[in-house]
Amino acid sequence: MTSALFDPLFGADRVAARIDDASWVAALVAVEVALSRAAAEHGVVPADDADRIEAAAAGLRIDPAALGRAAVEGGNPVIPLVRMLRTAAGEAGRSVHPGATSQDVMDTAAVLLVGWAGEVVLDDLRGAADAAAELAGRHRETPVIARTLGQQALPTTFGLVAAGWCAGLDRARVRLAEVIGGLPVQFGGAAGTLAALHPHGPAVAASLARALRLADAAPWHTERTRIGELAGALAVAAGACAKPATDVVLLAGTELGEVSEAAPGDSSSMPHKRNPIAAVTARGAARRAPGLAAVLLAAADHEHQRAAGPWHAEWQTIGELLRATGGAAARLRASLQGLEVHPDRMAANLALTAEVDGPPGHAAELVDRMLAQRP
Amino acid sequence: MTSALFDPLFGADRVAARIDDASWVAALVAVEVALSRAAAEHGVVPADDADRIEAAAAGLRIDPAALGRAAVEGGNPVIPLVRMLRTAAGEAGRSVHPGATSQDVMDTAAVLLVGWAGEVVLDDLRGAADAAAELAGRHRETPVIARTLGQQALPTTFGLVAAGWCAGLDRARVRLAEVIGGLPVQFGGAAGTLAALHPHGPAVAASLARALRLADAAPWHTERTRIGELAGALAVAAGACAKPATDVVLLAGTELGEVSEAAPGDSSSMPHKRNPIAAVTARGAARRAPGLAAVLLAAADHEHQRAAGPWHAEWQTIGELLRATGGAAARLRASLQGLEVHPDRMAANLALTAEVDGPPGHAAELVDRMLAQRP
Amino acid sequence: MTSALFDPLFGADRVAARIDDASWVAALVAVEVALSRAAAEHGVVPADDADRIEAAAAGLRIDPAALGRAAVEGGNPVIPLVRMLRTAAGEAGRSVHPGATSQDVMDTAAVLLVGWAGEVVLDDLRGAADAAAELAGRHRETPVIARTLGQQALPTTFGLVAAGWCAGLDRARVRLAEVIGGLPVQFGGAAGTLAALHPHGPAVAASLARALRLADAAPWHTERTRIGELAGALAVAAGACAKPATDVVLLAGTELGEVSEAAPGDSSSMPHKRNPIAAVTARGAARRAPGLAAVLLAAADHEHQRAAGPWHAEWQTIGELLRATGGAAARLRASLQGLEVHPDRMAANLALTAEVDGPPGHAAELVDRMLAQRP
Amino acid sequence: MTSALFDPLFGADRVAARIDDASWVAALVAVEVALSRAAAEHGVVPADDADRIEAAAAGLRIDPAALGRAAVEGGNPVIPLVRMLRTAAGEAGRSVHPGATSQDVMDTAAVLLVGWAGEVVLDDLRGAADAAAELAGRHRETPVIARTLGQQALPTTFGLVAAGWCAGLDRARVRLAEVIGGLPVQFGGAAGTLAALHPHGPAVAASLARALRLADAAPWHTERTRIGELAGALAVAAGACAKPATDVVLLAGTELGEVSEAAPGDSSSMPHKRNPIAAVTARGAARRAPGLAAVLLAAADHEHQRAAGPWHAEWQTIGELLRATGGAAARLRASLQGLEVHPDRMAANLALTAEVDGPPGHAAELVDRMLAQRP
Repeated sequence: MTSALFDPLFGADRVAARIDDASWVAALVAVEVALSRAAAEHGVVPADDADRIEAAAAGLRIDPAALGRAAVEGGNPVIPLVRMLRTAAGEAGRSVHPGATSQDVMDTAAVLLVGWAGEVVLDDLRGAADAAAELAGRHRETPVIARTLGQQALPTTFGLVAAGWCAGLDRARVRLAEVIGGLPVQFGGAAGTLAALHPHGPAVAASLARALRLADAAPWHTERTRIGELAGALAVAAGACAKPATDVVLLAGTELGEVSEAAPGDSSSMPHKRNPIAAVTARGAARRAPGLAAVLLAAADHEHQRAAGPWHAEWQTIGELLRATGGAAARLRASLQGLEVHPDRMAANLALTAEVDGPPGHAAELVDRMLAQRP
Repeated sequence: MTSALFDPLFGADRVAARIDDASWVAALVAVEVALSRAAAEHGVVPADDADRIEAAAAGLRIDPAALGRAAVEGGNPVIPLVRMLRTAAGEAGRSVHPGATSQDVMDTAAVLLVGWAGEVVLDDLRGAADAAAELAGRHRETPVIARTLGQQALPTTFGLVAAGWCAGLDRARVRLAEVIGGLPVQFGGAAGTLAALHPHGPAVAASLARALRLADAAPWHTERTRIGELAGALAVAAGACAKPATDVVLLAGTELGEVSEAAPGDSSSMPHKRNPIAAVTARGAARRAPGLAAVLLAAADHEHQRAAGPWHAEWQTIGELLRATGGAAARLRASLQGLEVHPDRMAANLALTAEVDGPPGHAAELVDRMLAQRP
Repeated sequence: MTSALFDPLFGADRVAARIDDASWVAALVAVEVALSRAAAEHGVVPADDADRIEAAAAGLRIDPAALGRAAVEGGNPVIPLVRMLRTAAGEAGRSVHPGATSQDVMDTAAVLLVGWAGEVVLDDLRGAADAAAELAGRHRETPVIARTLGQQALPTTFGLVAAGWCAGLDRARVRLAEVIGGLPVQFGGAAGTLAALHPHGPAVAASLARALRLADAAPWHTERTRIGELAGALAVAAGACAKPATDVVLLAGTELGEVSEAAPGDSSSMPHKRNPIAAVTARGAARRAPGLAAVLLAAADHEHQRAAGPWHAEWQTIGELLRATGGAAARLRASLQGLEVHPDRMAANLALTAEVDGPPGHAAELVDRMLAQRP
Repeated sequence: MTSALFDPLFGADRVAARIDDASWVAALVAVEVALSRAAAEHGVVPADDADRIEAAAAGLRIDPAALGRAAVEGGNPVIPLVRMLRTAAGEAGRSVHPGATSQDVMDTAAVLLVGWAGEVVLDDLRGAADAAAELAGRHRETPVIARTLGQQALPTTFGLVAAGWCAGLDRARVRLAEVIGGLPVQFGGAAGTLAALHPHGPAVAASLARALRLADAAPWHTERTRIGELAGALAVAAGACAKPATDVVLLAGTELGEVSEAAPGDSSSMPHKRNPIAAVTARGAARRAPGLAAVLLAAADHEHQRAAGPWHAEWQTIGELLRATGGAAARLRASLQGLEVHPDRMAANLALTAEVDGPPGHAAELVDRMLAQRP
């Protein structure tokens, strides 16, 4: 799910470091350790065991590749991980994975990972929005021709264009933060009834949530609206990046020349070119999001009490989607933060259509209102 | 976008009646009438004109097919509609479409349509959730075997299964209502600056919003996160229907026989069959949602100040997606409202795996908690 | 699935007339009539019955809306259609639907519809390709600047650009024709074994295929690679339209001005604009195809011997996809057939980047080769 | 794009080894070396240079991570790779990348990778189909109840069921092989005119194709129907795997028990379970394909002579899709090769519906015909 070759190019290296194989292992271990601790809190397992499990886990060096090979037989990495933890913990191994099923650990680990990686995505979305806001404020009165269906229309200001970019990025970020922040622990045991921990099930679940700083919730092993909401929010955020990236590419075109990137890319064959590479790769990353989101949205039909395929389709797709959206945000941020605006070219282009020389209406006022309302 | 042949079968007839060609025409006319009225409110056009436009609009019989043919030349139905309204309003025709561009009218009409159709979708989502809640309460202690990866696992209760269905439907509905309820008027004029109404632009926009009972907002002609959020929310709702529909189909299978629909379908060749047709067609409808949502999510990259394609891709897709999700909800509601539950078959199946006869843990307690927390 | 309001705008009216409700009814009836005839050919039913069924069918006026309502109970329109045909045929009604199941009739009718509508799609794809070829030939030596990543690069010729459009359209058409032409009859009876016609099953199937001018094949009720191939071929064709449509929109932009449409659209607010509406709506239509194709590709997982949802998801989606692709082809054809090319603007733009004034290499030679190899 | 943790689980390890970062580097280098050689063949560069470049390339140890970081500036890994090769080749460095542009090298390298990885995918598709054929032959007369819409219908044979699996896998494989086998070299230089090699452009391209054992073709830098066809063929193949995998999961369900996997997975919490893990993970992998294919199909709208985003979206998505489809095929093969069939359970289940005890019609005959027609 990660690529040392392509992740930097598509802005995904920061995200990738938080959803890669090692991160998955760390998240799975974190859930198991927290679970033993939570069970101990309610006397389900000895407190000493929880200490020893935590120590054993801290000392374990788990090779993701070895874990991956061992995962084939049982169908998920939790099964061999539990074996490893039990062995490492010695007698305390009896208190590993109390009352849990693999899905509890996979789902909750995924929630942790989404939180870790989401932090980066949200940060880049905010950085891109801030850069757009800065452009909007600086150019609230800089005239530029509005283009509709590719044709010159009537004047607007570049500030209003950038304020629209900012508005989309802000909306997408607020919603994404809301969705990610609301992702709770998923814990129900083999049948979703918390039976193996009876009568302490809900209390252990609540403690587990607290330990992992997640919200508590009834088991949602096959109720995947939260995953769908995450998919939607990530794809919307990618779209919010695609819009300004597309505009930058168009405005940076040789004939328009109204903006250029601070660090444009050169070409292997044409040294004279100044390619808006950050915006280009932001678009490339963003284009991948809708299809990945569709995979997650289509995987809502979890059968019975554990889906035989739809669940499994989520694991890597969540990571892919985080990489795509996070990458789009990071590259857009790079594009906008150093964006050079050329009011002279804007004025020259605007002059092409003689009919259009009126004042840009409420543009500056709208910019002020939009910036004032930023979340 | 509608089909008299297929809409009833897929539960989409109620929704279809609110997004069909006639509804589009009605929504477009409603926006134009409200706009003239809003402009009159601020002295931009004579108040008498607004009256006469409203009267003329009320008397117009617009054939969608004729409007459709006339729309080809300019690229959207607003252009010929404005011509028709102007002709019908006589001298007052000068006050039709004041300060507006086609996209203002198309977008705001789409928001109206989504509100109209959304009401039906939300109603059916609630109906389906209520039916699930009723099943959950009634069967909070009815033992059934949990199945994981298709295999019998450990006991749960049918009430807990149904409570999970209800939880997904409720979450999806609440979010969808939030998204639809937040869709504001879209009004910015040719370049998004409200220039042609200066200095009354924002005031006219606010009046227009009020008249149509929509929220006000800065122009969002090319900032489409709201459309993406709608797409996400509708696809999540379809997924929330797909889950219980899938379970019903599986549980109604001959060998399991744990539920059956009240009005199962017969077969053209096998009269002995009792097909869970409502659940089947709910699944059929829900399956269409993710791809349609992906189309909308991918259409976020609106270029410049009016997109040359991405915008146009939205129009019919929004209707399609409303039909798919609304249909899934309606058919699932029909399935669940009359669902016959067979505790004897549940008990017999549960007995198949001797190892699994423990108590269903916290199942009943979880049901109570989930039902108590219903929104 | 059809819209009198939007179909003309998106070029889908010709296709829509071949996949609308009435076409479905006609195709279903055609299959039933041909089936009785095929059964009679092998003595399975009396030959007289087949005559009377054909006559009764010819006399039937079936209201799609009524059929649609009657279809809800059994889950598909074949069940009530068979009842109607049986009633209309009197005693001969015993020979309606011999050895068949609903899916046989639905699938084979869908194949007929795809053939009918596909003819239009293929015709428009050819028309668009021919127009591109004509442009390629005429402008094989007309210099234009190649643009890479939006930046001026080095010279090419407009003919080579258009030859590339033509190549994509040709490839897509040849493949689509191959897929559509290969779609066979689907006929297997209730369990896919042709049991009810034993020992005449395969013979009746072969006769049915012949009567409908389709290829014969073993039952493929749940082996849907053909539907997936159709989805892929249609989406590829939409993409082959999206490429030139995108180029036309960009080249027609005010600042580039290198092409313009013969019948550009005007604007509701800006009469000076010349919008390349045909290309814009071609893009709008093409954008819908990938998501629709994904729905069909994802519906391959037909369970057992008749899928409970995946199959049903195909029906309307096939029509939607035909409309989207057919519409894109029709609108692109309109765009290209009258495309006005402006060599003076091409020359002026090319002069902007002083470094790039070399000869356009093998451009003309490549055009000749590409046109010579047209299928 | 690869994951040591998840690739084995989802059957993608063999494919992953052929599309990972190191494979990309190898393919890029192979194209550059072959290009210098091809240019030398026509006297465009000194033959000695080509030798020295090949030797230098053979000695280079390129770290994908370093190349990835260096790729950010220019927007693709070819630019720094060319620098590295030039440095390594000393004076012969002047003959690296003759007449080429980055896209030529990226596209042709992608074609190489698809060929390498495709070999594995095709092999697993064939292995799965062979296993299905073996089951079909062995059980051509083994009665099993056909299930339609989840309900028992009428008898068929398990052989006919498996013959249907085989037919889908064979069709998908043949088409995929055709698409992959037809992928040609992509070589056109900066503007697609082969200008920098004039008058040797087409001859060099032909030599390059020969050296890489690829077909020759006119430049197709922005004519992406081939990529779309690849996407379609891979998604269809994933679907052809999803169908039998879904059936295996259902038939292996505790209550049906008609098949079981030879190496079923155990559970972290329920040792008595026998999960059909190979089929489950095949489904999980296959579910990811349609969305990934939609990304590629939607990326057909390459602007001008090099797309600013759509092209970039292809790179990782092609690898993801190969991993998803290849993984589905590998896991399905594992499932089917050891599939245990339980005719006694089939008979017992069949007996549940008294009405259905007729002979399975033409089932065995259809099996024979389908197996005889295998490609």
